Amino acid sequence: MSIREGRFDEDLDPAILALSQSISFDRRLGGDDVEGSLAHAEMLHVADLLSAAEWEAIRRGLEEIREELERGTFPFDERAEDIHMNVEKRLAEKIGAAAGKLHTARSRNDQVALDLRLFVRRATREVKDGIRALAAALIEKAERHAELVLPAYTHLQRAQPVLLAHHLLAHVEMLLRDLGRFADAADRADECPLGSGACTGTGLPIDREFVRRKLGFARLTANSLDAVADRDFVLEFEAAAAILAVHLSRLAEEIVLWSTAEFGFVRLPDSVATGSSMMPQKKNPDGAELVRGKSGRIVGHLVGLLTVMKGLPLSYNRDLQEDKEGLFDTFDTLALSLAAIRSTVEAMEPDAARMRAAALDPASMTTATDLAESMVARGVPFREAHRQVGALVRRALGEGKSLGEVAGPDAPAAGDVDAGIARKDLPGGTAPSRVRAAIAAARARLAAEKGDEPRTAEPDRA
Amino acid sequence: MSIREGRFDEDLDPAILALSQSISFDRRLGGDDVEGSLAHAEMLHVADLLSAAEWEAIRRGLEEIREELERGTFPFDERAEDIHMNVEKRLAEKIGAAAGKLHTARSRNDQVALDLRLFVRRATREVKDGIRALAAALIEKAERHAELVLPAYTHLQRAQPVLLAHHLLAHVEMLLRDLGRFADAADRADECPLGSGACTGTGLPIDREFVRRKLGFARLTANSLDAVADRDFVLEFEAAAAILAVHLSRLAEEIVLWSTAEFGFVRLPDSVATGSSMMPQKKNPDGAELVRGKSGRIVGHLVGLLTVMKGLPLSYNRDLQEDKEGLFDTFDTLALSLAAIRSTVEAMEPDAARMRAAALDPASMTTATDLAESMVARGVPFREAHRQVGALVRRALGEGKSLGEVAGPDAPAAGDVDAGIARKDLPGGTAPSRVRAAIAAARARLAAEKGDEPRTAEPDRA
Amino acid sequence: MSIREGRFDEDLDPAILALSQSISFDRRLGGDDVEGSLAHAEMLHVADLLSAAEWEAIRRGLEEIREELERGTFPFDERAEDIHMNVEKRLAEKIGAAAGKLHTARSRNDQVALDLRLFVRRATREVKDGIRALAAALIEKAERHAELVLPAYTHLQRAQPVLLAHHLLAHVEMLLRDLGRFADAADRADECPLGSGACTGTGLPIDREFVRRKLGFARLTANSLDAVADRDFVLEFEAAAAILAVHLSRLAEEIVLWSTAEFGFVRLPDSVATGSSMMPQKKNPDGAELVRGKSGRIVGHLVGLLTVMKGLPLSYNRDLQEDKEGLFDTFDTLALSLAAIRSTVEAMEPDAARMRAAALDPASMTTATDLAESMVARGVPFREAHRQVGALVRRALGEGKSLGEVAGPDAPAAGDVDAGIARKDLPGGTAPSRVRAAIAAARARLAAEKGDEPRTAEPDRA
Amino acid sequence: MSIREGRFDEDLDPAILALSQSISFDRRLGGDDVEGSLAHAEMLHVADLLSAAEWEAIRRGLEEIREELERGTFPFDERAEDIHMNVEKRLAEKIGAAAGKLHTARSRNDQVALDLRLFVRRATREVKDGIRALAAALIEKAERHAELVLPAYTHLQRAQPVLLAHHLLAHVEMLLRDLGRFADAADRADECPLGSGACTGTGLPIDREFVRRKLGFARLTANSLDAVADRDFVLEFEAAAAILAVHLSRLAEEIVLWSTAEFGFVRLPDSVATGSSMMPQKKNPDGAELVRGKSGRIVGHLVGLLTVMKGLPLSYNRDLQEDKEGLFDTFDTLALSLAAIRSTVEAMEPDAARMRAAALDPASMTTATDLAESMVARGVPFREAHRQVGALVRRALGEGKSLGEVAGPDAPAAGDVDAGIARKDLPGGTAPSRVRAAIAAARARLAAEKGDEPRTAEPDRA
Repeated sequence: MSIREGRFDEDLDPAILALSQSISFDRRLGGDDVEGSLAHAEMLHVADLLSAAEWEAIRRGLEEIREELERGTFPFDERAEDIHMNVEKRLAEKIGAAAGKLHTARSRNDQVALDLRLFVRRATREVKDGIRALAAALIEKAERHAELVLPAYTHLQRAQPVLLAHHLLAHVEMLLRDLGRFADAADRADECPLGSGACTGTGLPIDREFVRRKLGFARLTANSLDAVADRDFVLEFEAAAAILAVHLSRLAEEIVLWSTAEFGFVRLPDSVATGSSMMPQKKNPDGAELVRGKSGRIVGHLVGLLTVMKGLPLSYNRDLQEDKEGLFDTFDTLALSLAAIRSTVEAMEPDAARMRAAALDPASMTTATDLAESMVARGVPFREAHRQVGALVRRALGEGKSLGEVAGPDAPAAGDVDAGIARKDLPGGTAPSRVRAAIAAARARLAAEKGDEPRTAEPDRA
Repeated sequence: MSIREGRFDEDLDPAILALSQSISFDRRLGGDDVEGSLAHAEMLHVADLLSAAEWEAIRRGLEEIREELERGTFPFDERAEDIHMNVEKRLAEKIGAAAGKLHTARSRNDQVALDLRLFVRRATREVKDGIRALAAALIEKAERHAELVLPAYTHLQRAQPVLLAHHLLAHVEMLLRDLGRFADAADRADECPLGSGACTGTGLPIDREFVRRKLGFARLTANSLDAVADRDFVLEFEAAAAILAVHLSRLAEEIVLWSTAEFGFVRLPDSVATGSSMMPQKKNPDGAELVRGKSGRIVGHLVGLLTVMKGLPLSYNRDLQEDKEGLFDTFDTLALSLAAIRSTVEAMEPDAARMRAAALDPASMTTATDLAESMVARGVPFREAHRQVGALVRRALGEGKSLGEVAGPDAPAAGDVDAGIARKDLPGGTAPSRVRAAIAAARARLAAEKGDEPRTAEPDRA
Repeated sequence: MSIREGRFDEDLDPAILALSQSISFDRRLGGDDVEGSLAHAEMLHVADLLSAAEWEAIRRGLEEIREELERGTFPFDERAEDIHMNVEKRLAEKIGAAAGKLHTARSRNDQVALDLRLFVRRATREVKDGIRALAAALIEKAERHAELVLPAYTHLQRAQPVLLAHHLLAHVEMLLRDLGRFADAADRADECPLGSGACTGTGLPIDREFVRRKLGFARLTANSLDAVADRDFVLEFEAAAAILAVHLSRLAEEIVLWSTAEFGFVRLPDSVATGSSMMPQKKNPDGAELVRGKSGRIVGHLVGLLTVMKGLPLSYNRDLQEDKEGLFDTFDTLALSLAAIRSTVEAMEPDAARMRAAALDPASMTTATDLAESMVARGVPFREAHRQVGALVRRALGEGKSLGEVAGPDAPAAGDVDAGIARKDLPGGTAPSRVRAAIAAARARLAAEKGDEPRTAEPDRA
Repeated sequence: MSIREGRFDEDLDPAILALSQSISFDRRLGGDDVEGSLAHAEMLHVADLLSAAEWEAIRRGLEEIREELERGTFPFDERAEDIHMNVEKRLAEKIGAAAGKLHTARSRNDQVALDLRLFVRRATREVKDGIRALAAALIEKAERHAELVLPAYTHLQRAQPVLLAHHLLAHVEMLLRDLGRFADAADRADECPLGSGACTGTGLPIDREFVRRKLGFARLTANSLDAVADRDFVLEFEAAAAILAVHLSRLAEEIVLWSTAEFGFVRLPDSVATGSSMMPQKKNPDGAELVRGKSGRIVGHLVGLLTVMKGLPLSYNRDLQEDKEGLFDTFDTLALSLAAIRSTVEAMEPDAARMRAAALDPASMTTATDLAESMVARGVPFREAHRQVGALVRRALGEGKSLGEVAGPDAPAAGDVDAGIARKDLPGGTAPSRVRAAIAAARARLAAEKGDEPRTAEPDRA
């Protein structure tokens, strides 16, 4: 039942066969393929292109195949090139000639577009779950250590005192944007391509709407050529993934820094640390390092697919087969990275004393801005206040004194870290009341992010 | 009034100075910077941090500066490092000491985040206008040549007959998705960061809401650390840009192909073609080639910023200065590419005869699928029909005959290209009535894309 | 014998464990790991750190392991994280306590650097073989069709007549540069890192030179910190790979174009073409399309690793684990792409008549430059000749005549394609004698490319 | 004298004109263009295609133009599209009709390939100078602080004591490889493309060898189609640049870390530090941060050009115009980054006490490996020694003791940092004698890197 039959004389060259096979990775779309075929076949029956008996046989056969796939007993045949031909071939083994009717009014071009959209839908839902769980862990951590003070950094130099909770919530903001990006991408991808055929549709009287409803898509794709030539839904998923991965790399970088001997802001319990094969004393934050490093491959996958798509004429070109492995690996990597960094966040134990000491360190003078602002409140233009405090800073450094000492008792702002924090009492500021409100608001926004009712089974792991 | 005054002893090393200056490119944000400063200063006045006279002086000074910037008479000072210090310095020259109060409760960290968001807002609006204009040109072209037939291609091999209008609408679909992506990105970016200070807010009693309303933002940024450390709004703009640029490269590739001697599907008038310095006969589709090539730099800019952001700890780091040049060039390149490809689309003249001849070419047998589907309609399983038609194809090729000849008079589907097109009468199909409806629908969807009321001045060109 | 023993209390978090395991892919380095360990152990014996009996036991054990790996019977243990611990664990099962001495004076940091260099060495050799074979196929094709004439293109517009052989040799030039790049990368990578320990070397009296000679490296790495922190040898391999992959994409693009109905310059036999699941007549150049598309992932892998390395402090960081999968996939993809495109080149059948007709097509006027140059030979300044021929071209197009007709009998250059080719008789030109010489020279340069004596076993395929 | 004259009726569309002009950036190639034209014109004279008077006029005219370019008085004309037409037009203004003979036997396709190769040649020489200067600064620093001890890090956790000099030399190793990469790239690029014409050479009797010798190239390009279609020499420069930029980002990252309050390993004098507009106390390592961030754009430029080249058929396509801006920016960025990081290295002042304290910190137990190796020297298998020391580490941490205390007096290795360093007495190790030898060797290798005799003028800065 090869598609070469009839038209072709010779076998395919082995190197090209090896290059063109996709069953080694698109087997992962088996469940999606069966789901799409079930909807398609039922529609063919409704449209009188399959008899009741044929539909029944196909339905039963496909359900058996689904079970074989789930159980891992499906007999994959490498010569049958891809998952679509594997499923069709297996169906023929089960039900005979009627299997030859399943591909009526369908091409692998619209079929693979469908399967891949089903995968992206599932993958998006799972990634969003992972993001929510990580955000929840950060919020939980923020709440538990709401009173802890550490320096905020700019240029990795101590800048101003800040609540640890406020710092952790900064990462939550990134994640909330990530949720929005994945949701928007999923909305835009929520279109059923089946019925687009090889590229112009089909001349047979099919019902695209029936299939759409059956598979739970919001809309039909509006143009058959675009439907088989488009991979925007993969690109947009990967672009959202790249930004998320970069966010995770930033959080990971901080955990790496915070767990150094030099910072000492957090202790990583043994459950999230690893050792050295040579140095017996070592305890390393490998999880965070790996998450940081994983951003590379996700950026790489995005670049890879953009490069593939560049300059391709319409409609389907075989280059599009390159859409899958990068997507699958992006999803797997994100799922695992989200889980690993969440475990690390949950496990890490802040060292309140080290953090506070860093914020209070006289040599770091993290209250200099508070001092300048207190002068502004007394009418000194800010630039002048900045200059005067700058000179005080220089004097203090030269004399080995604290800023409070050189500023004198009339400038309490120079010495009181907690008062400085409390004064940042504006939206987005680090005053304790604002941070408490921000925690509540973040929880509410996470909850408000529309729940994704599963419309299909969960994506497997490769 | 340098910020080095007070604190620093020595001048900055020349190489580091050269590396760190941004005035050679961020001067472009001058208008945005003034706009933000006007809103900020008015708020400072309302909050009693500026007297009426001070506010009035600052307002007048900034408006003069805006005019100087618009007229190109602003005296940029390379030693004043960036646009923010240039404006402040100029203001001091104009109004004296009061200028030193403008930076009250503000840092360059939140100021540059604001300026850049204002730029992205304007740039998004302009890019969307360019997308709409290109989509309109494609729709117009589709309507004017609604009856033209050419082959649809898969693998760049002739696949099935299709209407030119249907083909052009495929590109419109891509553009409609692009519009959505830019709109979503803009919505997510629609937050006012001012008031976040250097990273923790400010202790002075400012009113962030006042500034937000004044500048027309939908929301306030919710976390001060995130507000100065975040460049998602640039990354997301650049990711949408990369996908759009790849779409344009695909359209450009088709124009290059179609204007070859071999395809001969379109003629490019002299207004959109260029010559050779050596070969007198040459007429080249340089516009399309350049648009295709421009996708490279836009992908490169996205990669560049993702690489910059990877692994940066919170909050602001100077690496973030790398956000601007790539963004500016992405915007300029998109604006120009959209205009150039639109000119090309508008100007190109389809060769109806060449297109139709290609669709009818006996050796290409573009009706083979119609023939197979006509057999399906008579009850032959599709796989069997596919095999039989495949054998007919082989026979026809061997005997040098057309598919219609070997199929015989009982198989009219093999010979009638127009009937085949008409039979693709399903949503997304190429039947003439469907394509007419699709043209109307595309127009409506373009119009429905929410109009973007300009909230600020237009972005200049570099 | 876990490295966690002694130091750690708790098991590793499952998500971090899943993220950090590498045995699922670094098992591929099994042979390299054993080879390195054999050399290391023999040196330990020579240095009196292993007794004769211990060395003998280790040698025997490692050789058994090598056999198990080759036969596919090695019992991989996913909990033993990576290939190094798997081999050590297996060795302990085989020989008991003495296995605990193998890791003396060694860390996984220098060990994995060694294994990966051994892999790159083998991979480079194999890729170079693939390049040579493709270049030989192109040269062979050029020689067999030495007299065929087709248009050279610029801007994909017909430019000037050229020999097919000359065109094919252009691709050989690219491949010769690729060979040089891989050779240079391999020379630079030819350093033995073992003995660098975790990052500062070892305090035990080992002999690095002994190991280097045993493993056939040209030099020792010169700094222990760099030796474990460096992945230049992977980056440089991947950069050379990306350029090669882009070259292959250009050749593939031409094969796709040439096999269209519109160009019709080559016929692809069935052995290198594939069919459609829906359209019975289709014959597609999938091999060439896939090779073109594969360039994306290879560029992506390069970007991925550059992103990983960016901003990493010394020395070893766990992010470096991300070096392997991209490298392995780059190698596999290149090996397969080279073979597939070579098969396609060997199989494709030029259509001499179609090619020549395109070069002679009156409307394309590919001899216009020859005509202008003949005027130059008569003393007309080139710019003036260019202008005059341009006007003739316009007249010919307007009157539907050939350039020869409007140029008149005094301008034979306008009409004689073969004479024009013969006149390009300069180094690098397309005159037949020059092309014959170029074929001979290309063969000689290929042969001169230094033969790579295998110093280790061949790299497996994943 | 436009190349549109004769052949074209209409003016070029403004958007396409704006997109296709390159004079705004390729003006930078003015000196190269004149140099190439001088060699070409002299050859035309020798080949009797220019009279002595014509050659003399052209020579004089071009020399005047070169002077105008150098003095900044050249009247650039934006309508004349690119630098080549600008120079030719200016020459015509100066010498009249004879200027029309300069483009004899030449196309902009081979001309721009020549100009760009001349630029890459100059740029490579200058980048190599910058690398050498940075390496020399690192070596100088290493020598001056040869006795300083700090911890070597893996996973950013303290690993083992090491000499600062040894650490700095690790960066020198990277730079030595970079030198090699740029040298290899330059050797491969050392080919003269002139004489390749538009794509097939020329029919006029020119002497390519004459031009090659005049311009100091090692070889002629061997195939005219490849010569105008190839941009490997840009890609390879950019690939070497990307790897170098990543190296600089690693060094920059360490300077950022070392100058934090937490590490405190180096003090940055005011000349290489910058302040904050809001926070008076701040002193930031902006130079290092910028160098770290600049790696992003350089990676982006490489990706951009790879994307451009992907899938381009032969020979010249206008997409190739995208080769220049990325290349120019890559060169400028590298030159500035190398200078800025060198200034920072030269200026930074190590804090010997902080470094040594970190290495000796009892909680970090950086001598644990020495202890284990001392047990190995007494016959304990390494794995067993590793386990035992791991247990000691755990006990020490639990009891708040140093490793020396729990190990007892019989284990001196646990306590003596300097002895541990001295014991790493093997090639590439950190023993003082080895490091002194490595300093000398690095100096010698730098000097041995072949001197690049300037063969053309220095590349300007944009």
